[in-house]
Amino acid sequence: MTDQSRADRRAARRQKRVETPLLRVPFRPMRNPMPPMEVIRPEQLEQLHMASMRILEEIGLSLLDAETLSILEKAGARVDHAGQHAWLDRGLVLEAVARAPHTFTWRARNPAHDVPIGGDTIALAPQGGVAYVQSLDRGRRRGTLEDYENFLKINQMVGVLHFAGEQLIAPYEVPSSLRHLRRLPRALTLTDKAVMEAAHGREITADAVAMARLAFGVEPADGSPTIGGVINASSPLRYDERMLGGLITFARAGQATIITPFILAGAMSPITIAAALAQQNAEALAGIALTQLVRPGAPVIYGGFTTNVDMRSGSPAFGTPEGAWALAVGAQLARRYGLPYRGSGSLTNSKAPDAQAATETAWTIWPAVLSHTNFIMHAVGWLEGGLTVSYEKIMLDLESLAMFQHFLAGFEISDETLALDMMAEVGPGGHHFGTAHTQARFSTEFYQPLLADRQGYENWVAAGSPDAAQRASALWKDVLAAYEAPPVDPALREALDDFVARREREIGDRSLYD
Amino acid sequence: MTDQSRADRRAARRQKRVETPLLRVPFRPMRNPMPPMEVIRPEQLEQLHMASMRILEEIGLSLLDAETLSILEKAGARVDHAGQHAWLDRGLVLEAVARAPHTFTWRARNPAHDVPIGGDTIALAPQGGVAYVQSLDRGRRRGTLEDYENFLKINQMVGVLHFAGEQLIAPYEVPSSLRHLRRLPRALTLTDKAVMEAAHGREITADAVAMARLAFGVEPADGSPTIGGVINASSPLRYDERMLGGLITFARAGQATIITPFILAGAMSPITIAAALAQQNAEALAGIALTQLVRPGAPVIYGGFTTNVDMRSGSPAFGTPEGAWALAVGAQLARRYGLPYRGSGSLTNSKAPDAQAATETAWTIWPAVLSHTNFIMHAVGWLEGGLTVSYEKIMLDLESLAMFQHFLAGFEISDETLALDMMAEVGPGGHHFGTAHTQARFSTEFYQPLLADRQGYENWVAAGSPDAAQRASALWKDVLAAYEAPPVDPALREALDDFVARREREIGDRSLYD
Repeated sequence: MTDQSRADRRAARRQKRVETPLLRVPFRPMRNPMPPMEVIRPEQLEQLHMASMRILEEIGLSLLDAETLSILEKAGARVDHAGQHAWLDRGLVLEAVARAPHTFTWRARNPAHDVPIGGDTIALAPQGGVAYVQSLDRGRRRGTLEDYENFLKINQMVGVLHFAGEQLIAPYEVPSSLRHLRRLPRALTLTDKAVMEAAHGREITADAVAMARLAFGVEPADGSPTIGGVINASSPLRYDERMLGGLITFARAGQATIITPFILAGAMSPITIAAALAQQNAEALAGIALTQLVRPGAPVIYGGFTTNVDMRSGSPAFGTPEGAWALAVGAQLARRYGLPYRGSGSLTNSKAPDAQAATETAWTIWPAVLSHTNFIMHAVGWLEGGLTVSYEKIMLDLESLAMFQHFLAGFEISDETLALDMMAEVGPGGHHFGTAHTQARFSTEFYQPLLADRQGYENWVAAGSPDAAQRASALWKDVLAAYEAPPVDPALREALDDFVARREREIGDRSLYD
Repeated sequence: MTDQSRADRRAARRQKRVETPLLRVPFRPMRNPMPPMEVIRPEQLEQLHMASMRILEEIGLSLLDAETLSILEKAGARVDHAGQHAWLDRGLVLEAVARAPHTFTWRARNPAHDVPIGGDTIALAPQGGVAYVQSLDRGRRRGTLEDYENFLKINQMVGVLHFAGEQLIAPYEVPSSLRHLRRLPRALTLTDKAVMEAAHGREITADAVAMARLAFGVEPADGSPTIGGVINASSPLRYDERMLGGLITFARAGQATIITPFILAGAMSPITIAAALAQQNAEALAGIALTQLVRPGAPVIYGGFTTNVDMRSGSPAFGTPEGAWALAVGAQLARRYGLPYRGSGSLTNSKAPDAQAATETAWTIWPAVLSHTNFIMHAVGWLEGGLTVSYEKIMLDLESLAMFQHFLAGFEISDETLALDMMAEVGPGGHHFGTAHTQARFSTEFYQPLLADRQGYENWVAAGSPDAAQRASALWKDVLAAYEAPPVDPALREALDDFVARREREIGDRSLYD
């Protein structure tokens, strides 16, 4: 082979890399081998724990669901049925919580995409519960079913993400009560990754369990869920019927629940972060205990979603130092109880995929990864406090997540990588660019950027001075264009169609939750 | 007082906050009370240490300075004067390194601005060694003395930064050999914070020491330097005469040196990060040992500035996973030798103050802070791999640094902040916004954003949809407009003027380094 043909082949390989580095990032569990970042001391953690025990026993919770109150009463709790209130003894709560598994596997339709949950693993799930869509080309608008499909396709194609997702976007053209029937069959066929559904009341959640059964064929009898969803408390100290119904339905079916109080300190709790965390812990443990009273050993994740309210506007403030404290301390609390922990990733208040968005997201994803968050919800896409998902922001967030995958894998220290012979050979003042040691590794040794522009200023100007968001606008279209559908058994497709048709008739124009 | 007048006063206070939160961030040492992030295990650290000892002994360094070779020879090193090469025995190196102080205080003209260096403190210094200036209004252009003054004024006004800075920007209208005479008198009068100067050869460095003496009156006899600068190795395994002259001159005067190999793995070292770090360690320890042979106990900082080369363009790649590894392992190595550690902050390859810039900066500042970097150089302002400083990027970076100051200070856990009585009083489902507990704390409890926009989408659009960079463009002008000069003794001003006039005559049109 001539030098020229070698150079040509190298150039062709380089060209290919330029086009698709994002699609070459492999699907694999992410693990953080470092000790977790801990922002409070063990004795401070105990102060929070003790305060939350007192909250559960002395103040109690408002639980707006009759079955929940009965379950708790049967377990020994003091219950006021008329007032829909329960006081939970610490013995009852901690005994129930202790039955929850420390780790479990969230099954995907493709077993190669199964997701380990807990321990030192970090699972990445996309955005959820979003109303608006934003892209550079089309601006900000309400989400549609087409957007939902687009996001599924992107999530299927990018190895960085472990989950196909949950709601991803609310398709405004679909009636609320039928949205889960539009969403989940698509998630189960356009992707083969692990799926979630909104746990919005008994009926929707039962539909989700039924559709998962069609796709997986079996009950999660071995403790490995095939579906699950987020349960939010209506803080302070309250769960509504919709969420309790969803919790009970998923837990009874052995499916996963992610028990997540959503607390804005200063609005839904006292303003001090210590209070917000004690309250979060009380609320989370109450929900987790309930899952274990419904079905001992049901897979459950301790969720934290506490941040501060912006005292000027009254709106939630994301990517703040307070949110970082809460995220990291939530992980410490979850570890105290031996539970997997859910945090968040791409949180920001920014209205544009700009430096504010990236900085606030860094202030969420860095503490999330370093504190050993096991399940990172909203790992990509947020703008505007989660009202909007941005196609470009998804791409920008994927870059940082891919960097974490590379970073956490670490680097090898051995005689070969220490390469003292090469240092002696090149000598002081020499150049290592052209050595065989360098050339043998140059295309694989380093993290390959997905979006970051490293060329010189003049070349960048000649290319039209594209900022990161503009480059991201090209990238998501490339990813979407590269979409390849995973294999789907025609029988599954038919079974899902039948199920949806029947359920549509049954639901009619009744109003369910969304 | 009527409710209305109270509301008016509250509104006025709010208004004031909107204008100047950056200027209200206090000057104070930043401390990281958490255990440092460590990315390699102790036995791996020893592998790097042992490899660097072998490099010093078996390969040696090219040292292009006769006095350096004589000092080392006198200390027992094997030296080849003709070949300008030395081989350093580990006993010699480690014994000398052990004489360096673990911590010291870098003095400022205003003692309230003295900076503790080492231990768990983090000192923040602005950008250095930059050629171009960028602002949204004027685009990218060569730097001037006016820019240099502007940066000094900003650095004086923002409490977040601990240092007035070093070169900040190269003023292109000033002849190279006279730049230090233009810079340092301004740094010593427009600010009262700790100063640095470029250690560019014996003559410039001696001028810097002389000017510091005029400002501080005394020698740093107690081990507290009043000036200092960065010494870069010309990697691989080489120091040039300019840097060795600067090192010897600062060290002999008891002033601070920051010994910093600048290594791009794959170009100035073998491509593997293990090799780059072993080489960095050998180079850094050689320079540090030299400072201690010149003057035992001279204040010195172990510097790391290792990252990977971009294999596509051949240019340095900043804000990469490899750079994060190197930053964190550098801190581990420095701790092994009991030395303060210097890393960096705002590193990025981006050409614009966009999401790439913010993400790459996060990939530098987060590992820097978490790994207990004691001195963060380039804490603000970088674009384009440090070729350019952006007025807007400085403001964006200050936001993240102010957030770290707040974050690392932690939060109180006590009966009062746990506020169980407030939870009982408000009750489940209630609202904490209007309680006395909240109102008493609402203006002080949370981090106040400097730039982050948290208002709703419609209001943001009504304000012209300003992105973070556009808001930063307004902020830096506000900071500059608020500049207040610190007190300066007229005698100091006169002495500096006399010194500069004399030195200008002496230097004439001789060519010194810059």
